[in-house]
Amino acid sequence: MHAFGAVMDSPDLVALAVVGDGEAETAPLEGSWKGISFLNPARDGAVLPVLHLNGAKISGPTVLARKPPAEVRRLLEGHGYDVLEVTGDDLPGMHRRFAQILATAWERIRGIQQDARSGSWDGTRPRWPLIVLRTPKGWTGPAEVDGVRVVGTWRAHQLPLAGVRDNPERLAELEQWLRSYRPEDLFTPDGAPVALVQEAAPPGELRMSASPHANGGLLTRDLVLPDLRDHAVDVAAPATVRLESTRRLGELLREVYRANPDRFRLFCPDETNSNRLGAVFDASDRAFMERVEPGDVALSREGRVMEVLSEHNCHGWLEGYTLTGRHGLFATYEAFAMVSASQTIQHAKWLEEAESLAWRAPVPSLNVLLTSTAWRNDHNGFSHQGPGLIQNVITQRGTISRVYLPPDANCLLAVADRCLRSRSEVNLIVIDKQPQLQWLTLDQAAEHCARGACVWDWAGTDDGSDDPDVVLACAGDIVTMEAVAAADILRRWLPRFRVRVVNVVDLMALTRPRDHPHGMAPMVFEELFTANVDVVVAFHGYPGAIHQLVHGRPDADRFHVRGFIEQGTTTTPFDMVVLNRASRYHLVMDALNNARRTPRGASELKAWCERRLAEHAEYVVEHLEDMPEVRDWTLQRP
Amino acid sequence: MHAFGAVMDSPDLVALAVVGDGEAETAPLEGSWKGISFLNPARDGAVLPVLHLNGAKISGPTVLARKPPAEVRRLLEGHGYDVLEVTGDDLPGMHRRFAQILATAWERIRGIQQDARSGSWDGTRPRWPLIVLRTPKGWTGPAEVDGVRVVGTWRAHQLPLAGVRDNPERLAELEQWLRSYRPEDLFTPDGAPVALVQEAAPPGELRMSASPHANGGLLTRDLVLPDLRDHAVDVAAPATVRLESTRRLGELLREVYRANPDRFRLFCPDETNSNRLGAVFDASDRAFMERVEPGDVALSREGRVMEVLSEHNCHGWLEGYTLTGRHGLFATYEAFAMVSASQTIQHAKWLEEAESLAWRAPVPSLNVLLTSTAWRNDHNGFSHQGPGLIQNVITQRGTISRVYLPPDANCLLAVADRCLRSRSEVNLIVIDKQPQLQWLTLDQAAEHCARGACVWDWAGTDDGSDDPDVVLACAGDIVTMEAVAAADILRRWLPRFRVRVVNVVDLMALTRPRDHPHGMAPMVFEELFTANVDVVVAFHGYPGAIHQLVHGRPDADRFHVRGFIEQGTTTTPFDMVVLNRASRYHLVMDALNNARRTPRGASELKAWCERRLAEHAEYVVEHLEDMPEVRDWTLQRP
Repeated sequence: MHAFGAVMDSPDLVALAVVGDGEAETAPLEGSWKGISFLNPARDGAVLPVLHLNGAKISGPTVLARKPPAEVRRLLEGHGYDVLEVTGDDLPGMHRRFAQILATAWERIRGIQQDARSGSWDGTRPRWPLIVLRTPKGWTGPAEVDGVRVVGTWRAHQLPLAGVRDNPERLAELEQWLRSYRPEDLFTPDGAPVALVQEAAPPGELRMSASPHANGGLLTRDLVLPDLRDHAVDVAAPATVRLESTRRLGELLREVYRANPDRFRLFCPDETNSNRLGAVFDASDRAFMERVEPGDVALSREGRVMEVLSEHNCHGWLEGYTLTGRHGLFATYEAFAMVSASQTIQHAKWLEEAESLAWRAPVPSLNVLLTSTAWRNDHNGFSHQGPGLIQNVITQRGTISRVYLPPDANCLLAVADRCLRSRSEVNLIVIDKQPQLQWLTLDQAAEHCARGACVWDWAGTDDGSDDPDVVLACAGDIVTMEAVAAADILRRWLPRFRVRVVNVVDLMALTRPRDHPHGMAPMVFEELFTANVDVVVAFHGYPGAIHQLVHGRPDADRFHVRGFIEQGTTTTPFDMVVLNRASRYHLVMDALNNARRTPRGASELKAWCERRLAEHAEYVVEHLEDMPEVRDWTLQRP
Repeated sequence: MHAFGAVMDSPDLVALAVVGDGEAETAPLEGSWKGISFLNPARDGAVLPVLHLNGAKISGPTVLARKPPAEVRRLLEGHGYDVLEVTGDDLPGMHRRFAQILATAWERIRGIQQDARSGSWDGTRPRWPLIVLRTPKGWTGPAEVDGVRVVGTWRAHQLPLAGVRDNPERLAELEQWLRSYRPEDLFTPDGAPVALVQEAAPPGELRMSASPHANGGLLTRDLVLPDLRDHAVDVAAPATVRLESTRRLGELLREVYRANPDRFRLFCPDETNSNRLGAVFDASDRAFMERVEPGDVALSREGRVMEVLSEHNCHGWLEGYTLTGRHGLFATYEAFAMVSASQTIQHAKWLEEAESLAWRAPVPSLNVLLTSTAWRNDHNGFSHQGPGLIQNVITQRGTISRVYLPPDANCLLAVADRCLRSRSEVNLIVIDKQPQLQWLTLDQAAEHCARGACVWDWAGTDDGSDDPDVVLACAGDIVTMEAVAAADILRRWLPRFRVRVVNVVDLMALTRPRDHPHGMAPMVFEELFTANVDVVVAFHGYPGAIHQLVHGRPDADRFHVRGFIEQGTTTTPFDMVVLNRASRYHLVMDALNNARRTPRGASELKAWCERRLAEHAEYVVEHLEDMPEVRDWTLQRP
């Protein structure tokens, strides 16, 4: 997958992907062969897979090595490849035959590319060469140890000669084996490689270690990014406009495609339209090298929007694309992001380690947009509810992990702009795709995102003259609406009850500065959350994420978190927040239960909230939709 | 994958797996075809895949539908199948042809099985039938809407006729379409199905909804489990024996295999030996239906240990196996568990929902053993360090999620015994495979695991007469050794400084009882951790997991957690705990920094700890192994 991502939009690059027969048994690898169905020989480079069947894994044979060779060939031909085979263990015969096959493969690749680029191509997907290389496992290693065969078996996987420190006989075998490579011919008496060895290395950037494609930061050029004002939502006052926020991002990405025809791609499992990002199709079709039929929409071999129903492929392609210095975004349904979570983590680890290597130039960030979230899977239900990727990203090192929960379109634009300019980060952006109330102007949004979290004065009843009675914090679009609605209810019922509403857009701002560079300074944190007033938090994800992020902040026990607690399935939008106890009515009751003082009228209001919840429960069963006052709720300012 | 798991050891069961061409594009599905390389026709049932190519996904065509049909056939033949094809949209012709093909497939399956079971089989892997079914997407739905083609395109994916409530014309189209199925012929005037329809349903348990295989709890029989005493480690005193704990589990599992030849399997990605579970091979070979060669070890078609280098397959097979009422264990390197994390989560969600269905009988639990952990990947390094699955399991509902961190072999046996007897849980067991000190006798271990967490009086200097100066808690094998060693240092240097050592084996015991059924009662929690003494926690996983689990406990801010913080790579075992600041020396300093009082001698001891850390840093660079006093440390009681 990474090889395919590396050669996209890099027409002269050939990535040679050596695939061991162990890893060939993994599902992600098996899913990667179809990359050629998305690779355009006129515009992209080529991947030359070398399926190296040495027969065994750590403790047994592999499936592909033991299937009949004709069946393996048939399988790879079925995947669409032109299969070349090299088998043997004779030397130097194998070196020569492999060099010959490599030259053949190279010629075929260049032939395919020349045809495609000369205009004589009929547009059908080429049959790209693939090499099947069969050599013994542990080849040239000790043939036998203690009379047991090692070469050609799984025993060659780890240490063929173990215990050399305690066993002189073994040590002698080790010496004998290593001497079989004739080091005296390969090194000078000082231990330097002889000229013959040095000549074998190609010059300059042709050395793999010096190829700029392997240090993609060297090739990275900034994206040309559009003016956010061209795509911003006009918000005259909070909660007066309702629209699909991700649609604005789609328009932004359309312009990114137009302005950067060689270095930006969107990767998405067949959900670009569903995620409301379809505006990109005005700038580019979907890439597709298989048969295109009349009636297909936004689908062609010239397309550069990458849709394949495989999170693994989308993620792996994006990794390869960014590691070679280009920019991209992986957009997926939130719950499906867990399918490729191990890739997100491993990429994060790669970035973490790369930081410590001065010669590694920073690469474009891995940007992941999660939409169709847990709270609005009205017809998909419980299996599609899983905000777990947040949990996994926040455990990575602070130097690279970023989690953004923009509450509206303008915040989403500001966050996206920041992520697309950033380097060597893993940026997780979470926002739903359904129509939603808009809160901030673009200027307000930009400032909000820069600060990470702000008091929304217009939403609360706290005038700042003293600590509020309770803080109502929110992080995440759906729960932000519930928190603002809860504050609105409190203002109407108990105008002198002081509620402060704090919205968190940059989740890592909650952490201590020593744990994360985005961590708010203690004074800023206390300015928002006070030092000891209780905080009711309405959170997009699993509540525990907040508990771990605020650990170490003053009196962290006072943070009471409502979030997704694995409840609800196919139901109405509001019923989802009710079932997870994060609805406006729950938040009102939580605020009252945890406030510094219990205002007169509190019990009456709580009783009212309980009645509203009971009415809701009846209403959704009867009407199969939410009560009008919830469905059509907006903020009516006094 | 689930289909293959369902038919293992169920010789008369045929699982018909309908695979949409959308899901056929996912990597896990592509990795699943090789299930036939592990299915024995003499002993197992059969999977009949129906690859249903209707051409499109949610918003575009699929790769398999647009590849040349001959290439698709070649691919599936390459996977080892006997491909049968049915294509068309004529009715009732298609019904008849599909019924015919089903009958053909059935005959071939029974033929293969009869051969294999009659003794005339030569042992080669059969070419099992597979049906490729090509029909139009949205078949029999509205052909066109607003003059745009719907049937046969992606537009049929969701709502072909949207907006019927507001658009009378659409409503009429909807009625016309639904009437095309002639409901008046299919239902009585009262709305009941007519006899013809009812006769189409098979009788009794042949109905899918009534098949006990689809409600596997009905078929579940308890495992016959060996007496733990036969496998227990003889522990005369804590920390006097050092051995590989998982090896004892391997011996236990060997007996489980022997006593349950039809209802227990171990699933592991080629690491059974590496994880020290190899004793199972005394009872069963690895299953393998491809060519077996002379010199292969513990590999045969009769084998029932499931090794395939694919976490997805291992996990999916186990799911299918348990959902049909049998028992198993998935064992994997800890970091690789994230590869199949979305499967763990989705299975957990399935169990969560199944709870609310009274007719669903509880099924055997999904047992996952994580070994080769973050702390002991001495030669694999940073990519293999990832304790993230804990983070994902603890967010699932308390009714099903369980996380165990046995500190030694006897605790592992007690935990495994509990998990293998349990129903409808997701049990995560985390323990390393390297030689490690043993702490508890089997009886002590059994009591410890039953209670979930205990004070280890022998490790601390707290006599219980008053609150200790500090609590040193530990959860996880490696960090438990560090915590006990830290307490030992404190005892030697500051014998009157009162340290209480608490070991946590059942992680969910830390949560409040209202959040999890294993949550300790408040009194028990305070008995262990006091109400206000600071607790230094040495934890196996990411520290945040503890912060979220203890939220809501009295003064949770006093829990100071050391755990894996994404540091360290290929280095010595002790250097791993040093780099992650969880070493005995760090814990001593943490204990002193957070204790209720600062004893005389504290600063001297802290300086000593700093010196030991500096010496360690020099020593490992020079000697490439740990200092002898660390490497050979045991608990010397006074």
